Amino acid sequence: MNKEEQYMQAAIKLARKNLDGSNGGPFGAVVVKDDQVVGRGSNEVIKNNDPSAHAEVVAIRDACRTLNTYDLSGCIIFASCEPCPMCLGAVYWARIDKLYYAATKDDAAEAQFDDAFFYKELALDPPKRSMASSQLLREDAVKVFKEWIESGQADKIRY
Amino acid sequence: MNKEEQYMQAAIKLARKNLDGSNGGPFGAVVVKDDQVVGRGSNEVIKNNDPSAHAEVVAIRDACRTLNTYDLSGCIIFASCEPCPMCLGAVYWARIDKLYYAATKDDAAEAQFDDAFFYKELALDPPKRSMASSQLLREDAVKVFKEWIESGQADKIRY
Repeated sequence: MNKEEQYMQAAIKLARKNLDGSNGGPFGAVVVKDDQVVGRGSNEVIKNNDPSAHAEVVAIRDACRTLNTYDLSGCIIFASCEPCPMCLGAVYWARIDKLYYAATKDDAAEAQFDDAFFYKELALDPPKRSMASSQLLREDAVKVFKEWIESGQADKIRY
Repeated sequence: MNKEEQYMQAAIKLARKNLDGSNGGPFGAVVVKDDQVVGRGSNEVIKNNDPSAHAEVVAIRDACRTLNTYDLSGCIIFASCEPCPMCLGAVYWARIDKLYYAATKDDAAEAQFDDAFFYKELALDPPKRSMASSQLLREDAVKVFKEWIESGQADKIRY
């Protein structure tokens, strides 16, 4: 078994740990930097009453604690299942270099998880989505962005 | 000013609070249930070294703590900016009923935030994305999903 397969086995083991359903769904992830596991996560939505506590997000937060940074450049993430849009977004924001995944979002859909449906929803313009959304007070919010740009912050910080 | 505008003003105020850049970007959100604010959030990526700590995710976590649940059905979220894919994914997973947003993802792009770019990336098939990704050990991960389905969990829990 090569190194990548070993890390993926670790992610799948974290998924398997959740098979009793008390923590959340059967998903696991590990974050690796310089051949060291720096973050581990399994789904903790139910355990922590946190809908954002998917395995990848939990593993990313764990890695950030370990490395004391919000920037995981140079890291690789191994996920037992293709990340949902929320988790893939988190992987991008964390600036992770590479993603390995095992099961696909269609495999997850067979197990009744909504990942595939959410991908379709996010690709639509807001008015076409199943969730209602409306725009309100755009000018007031844009004013805040303008002040941000004028203060020079926009050039310094990107995350 | 109607109720919806008042809630959005509260979200924009939370965005404005971040203009000094020490917590994170200038984004804010509030979650409302039955005409009560049950969750508040501003971006805390830098403050907490947590790339998932966008305003909407922070507000959702706060609302879940307040209401002691991972299911925010019946709630509305007000965000100072159109949510990025990660946050919109979190809004869907939390089963929030409706989204109000002020600035758009293109307004955010002008302030150098990558939301619009990430939307384009997520809509692509994995091999076409700028971030490298590979599939590995699918069979092992699917086995975990099969055990999940056989145990009857898939029919009970969806989140």
